[in-house]
Amino acid sequence: MSPSTIGDFLLRRLREAGLGHVFGVPGDYNLELLQQLEDGKELAWIGTCNELNAAYAADGSARLDGLASIVVTNGVGALSAINGIAGAYAEHVPVICICGSLPMRSTGQGRRMHHTLADGGDPDTFLRCFAEVTTAQAQLTPQNAAAEIDRVIQAAWHRKLPVYLELPSDIAYLTIEVPDEPLTRTTPASDPERLEACATALADRLRAAHAPAILADLDTDRFGVAGDVTALAERLQAPVAVLNTAKSVIDEHHPLFAGVYTGAGSDPDVRTVVEHSDCLLTVGYRRIDSTSGFFTDALPPDTIHLHGWSTDTGDANFQAVALTDLLPALVKRLPDRPRASFSHPVPQQDRPAGELTQAGYWQTIQRFLRPGDVLLAEDGTSSAGATGLRLPPDCTFVTQAVWGSIGYTLGALLGTLTAAPHRRQLLFIGDGSFQLTAQELSTILRHDHKPYIFLINNAGYTIERAILGRHAAYNDIANWSYADLPKVLAPDTPSTSFVVRTVEELDAALAGEHDGLVFIEAVMAADDAPPSLIDGGHAFADIDYGPRGPQHRHNAQL
Amino acid sequence: MSPSTIGDFLLRRLREAGLGHVFGVPGDYNLELLQQLEDGKELAWIGTCNELNAAYAADGSARLDGLASIVVTNGVGALSAINGIAGAYAEHVPVICICGSLPMRSTGQGRRMHHTLADGGDPDTFLRCFAEVTTAQAQLTPQNAAAEIDRVIQAAWHRKLPVYLELPSDIAYLTIEVPDEPLTRTTPASDPERLEACATALADRLRAAHAPAILADLDTDRFGVAGDVTALAERLQAPVAVLNTAKSVIDEHHPLFAGVYTGAGSDPDVRTVVEHSDCLLTVGYRRIDSTSGFFTDALPPDTIHLHGWSTDTGDANFQAVALTDLLPALVKRLPDRPRASFSHPVPQQDRPAGELTQAGYWQTIQRFLRPGDVLLAEDGTSSAGATGLRLPPDCTFVTQAVWGSIGYTLGALLGTLTAAPHRRQLLFIGDGSFQLTAQELSTILRHDHKPYIFLINNAGYTIERAILGRHAAYNDIANWSYADLPKVLAPDTPSTSFVVRTVEELDAALAGEHDGLVFIEAVMAADDAPPSLIDGGHAFADIDYGPRGPQHRHNAQL
Repeated sequence: MSPSTIGDFLLRRLREAGLGHVFGVPGDYNLELLQQLEDGKELAWIGTCNELNAAYAADGSARLDGLASIVVTNGVGALSAINGIAGAYAEHVPVICICGSLPMRSTGQGRRMHHTLADGGDPDTFLRCFAEVTTAQAQLTPQNAAAEIDRVIQAAWHRKLPVYLELPSDIAYLTIEVPDEPLTRTTPASDPERLEACATALADRLRAAHAPAILADLDTDRFGVAGDVTALAERLQAPVAVLNTAKSVIDEHHPLFAGVYTGAGSDPDVRTVVEHSDCLLTVGYRRIDSTSGFFTDALPPDTIHLHGWSTDTGDANFQAVALTDLLPALVKRLPDRPRASFSHPVPQQDRPAGELTQAGYWQTIQRFLRPGDVLLAEDGTSSAGATGLRLPPDCTFVTQAVWGSIGYTLGALLGTLTAAPHRRQLLFIGDGSFQLTAQELSTILRHDHKPYIFLINNAGYTIERAILGRHAAYNDIANWSYADLPKVLAPDTPSTSFVVRTVEELDAALAGEHDGLVFIEAVMAADDAPPSLIDGGHAFADIDYGPRGPQHRHNAQL
Repeated sequence: MSPSTIGDFLLRRLREAGLGHVFGVPGDYNLELLQQLEDGKELAWIGTCNELNAAYAADGSARLDGLASIVVTNGVGALSAINGIAGAYAEHVPVICICGSLPMRSTGQGRRMHHTLADGGDPDTFLRCFAEVTTAQAQLTPQNAAAEIDRVIQAAWHRKLPVYLELPSDIAYLTIEVPDEPLTRTTPASDPERLEACATALADRLRAAHAPAILADLDTDRFGVAGDVTALAERLQAPVAVLNTAKSVIDEHHPLFAGVYTGAGSDPDVRTVVEHSDCLLTVGYRRIDSTSGFFTDALPPDTIHLHGWSTDTGDANFQAVALTDLLPALVKRLPDRPRASFSHPVPQQDRPAGELTQAGYWQTIQRFLRPGDVLLAEDGTSSAGATGLRLPPDCTFVTQAVWGSIGYTLGALLGTLTAAPHRRQLLFIGDGSFQLTAQELSTILRHDHKPYIFLINNAGYTIERAILGRHAAYNDIANWSYADLPKVLAPDTPSTSFVVRTVEELDAALAGEHDGLVFIEAVMAADDAPPSLIDGGHAFADIDYGPRGPQHRHNAQL
């Protein structure tokens, strides 16, 4: 044990956990920690325009780096960020939310302070809010800080979920005794006997199967087992399908990659692979409306479900079995099979021309993709279109198919750029979504990042129009000069903007060599959308809903 | 009783409660209600760029109108707005937050849905978050909707606090039996005996006093008793001081207006009036760091505290006594006193000139004010400077001195403009704060509002620099071409922008006649600030804080 200030120890633990940067907004209750961060010079401070965007950025960063953190201030900062933290929970992204909270000398005296509800001095109000949307929480004190910091950071890492820590401003500089051993990204071991029993049971099933298959959800990525899943598929020569939440996790050019499974809306070949498998193994599977084609999926009844820390075969449930241990154990137990292939070439399409349609847009984007790209696809026509792209190898695809908070991807882009500044990054976003978080373009430019931003200007919330209110005023938005925004938010930073209305203009924009951020505003019709979006909604039907309302909503679950 | 759909009944109740408009963002769980709103044609829909801004707008609107509402969607929308709703709680502003929530047919089946944590189907997660920051909550069902809608709206009105309502998307069009009687903004009556006893006790104290005085907090405004307080002051010929939270509530040119009381930082005359009164009556008083000069206030020990629904004399506590009943009862009981006056002329200052300083800026603004203006002052140098202005009669001053969420005022401006489109409105905001919510300028322009926006460009968070990190990078922000933003966000809407660096340039900008929004970016030094802000911080001291941290923070409570 050695002496350290609490703030320095917390920052040391973040570094040891692998962090190189922290996002957030200063506030008078977190200034001490930020001063320690600036003096320590080992973590980069990425100040964002607001706290929600900081949370989105941390989410994006953690998707590439495995872990990320934000620092906010009491009440106002924490509650501004909470939607982003809840999103990290829904999407299984470990984000450490650190809140500079009221000084203990004030709470000790029961004083009413600014940045609180000021209704009597309950110091747990915001912690209780965060307890709803995080997997572990702590209010640090000089007595518990050394233990609680480790407990909470490790909970985030082990469970792949966000956590919440309150650091009272007046103890950041207080010295305590802390462990000398570094914190590492270790994972608790499986119970050896249960692992053995589970692996044996699964291997027996798989060996006997004629048509084994794998269906991967997002935990395949979060637990870092995409390579293990691919190795298992190769050993089995079994096809791997993914949910839309796990797009890009399995190489889409791998001969065993079967495609994206979205229930009834899927390609018939993908449906066959998944639904007719006599031994379907899922990895991290969650059945959610937005990932199951609105519950039109049909997994075989004896599907085996692998989760981060347990496995369920229907007959048996194995706890204390880690995904990271189980998959290699299966590969070891299984014999090679004759080589198979499930190639599914993208159908040759006529080269689009003329006025930009959604169809022509995504065909043009398809040709622009390169191996190693990071793609971020905002909810709406962007995610619907981008999910249909066939990604080159080593691409990363970021979307929020479960939480679906519009505006997320612009903030997340700051995070993915910070985590992987040397990869080419492409953001696909609609006008309505862009408006929620537009200011964070400023921070992206401030740090000289050079992404491509593809903004679809189709005059409002097309994803909502597809469900209800095709021509309704509530689905309209103001029309900005989007392409002029980079110059206003960063007058001295090189960037290039285009407004394109035809395939030819889009092609020309994409053909150029650009130094700096490239912003491409594509003007398209308000009621044009990729087929998968229309399937999820109403096909823009002009509904006669009468006094009993729109009973005929295509998607009856909404 | 008559049949009505639940959605139509909810909208009818909002209208009956006095609302003319609703703010918010569409989402797939609230589209039915928005369709009913659009078809009903009796409430205006003011779509905002994001939900936090909607909550801020509703807060601003309710400060002028007495009540306001937002509509958001499940999870993502609600949690995006929660910081604004918590602010309404801290600042005693009745905002009705309506969340279009999961359809009952989905929760009834326990299905996992998008816009939730998707961790097992607990439908109360977000309600519990809102229970922390609202005074009443309800999840509507066909069985409870008729009663719960009224209960929750009335709770907001009676308590001057925000409330939260969840309307499942699939019951908005369901028909139920609802009362025919309109909902009115009535207030529960005081208990007659207790009112009598309380009024008698207070009148006895006041009659015997040689130096009675009144100290008004924000509930003076929220309960609509500013006129009653003034009438009581006139009857007593007693001076009235206000907390910074209640600036503009008492006419600052009234001969009995004593000034803003902020503890040790106050004008000596105001301190004498408050601290040496032999019968001080407070209205809605809350002792908070940011409203009490960091607890340097010194109210007489036998101060009488009047609250919305109770009165405390120290000796006795009277419940079920309404402020709205008590104040007129006191006036009726008290004899006239000889006329007094507490005039406090603004000291004549030299007309500033040359490079803009905070001092010269606020002197110039002072001369620009007109009776009836609405002023919004953002936390930081803007609120510190604007609080020092002497307001002409009939002005309204909006600030968030308790919650202090930066960025609030730009959203709130949309609300005050919607509530009072024909009053001249002036927003004072700093660059750091502006960046949090900048996109809402778009909605202000979209509705052809014509406020003056005074933006101080001083290269970062000066309020934080005054506390810690005078030259720290974490207090820096990106430098936007702020004045160019109106043209990007509303290319076809007339507006006029200025960048001013001298008093003469500011004077010239203010002298012109403009059609449309006027945006004045004033460039000032990063470490210049009004004296009251410096008093609250460190006077920008370069602190030698050493290994034990900044122990010498001027404001030891932070």
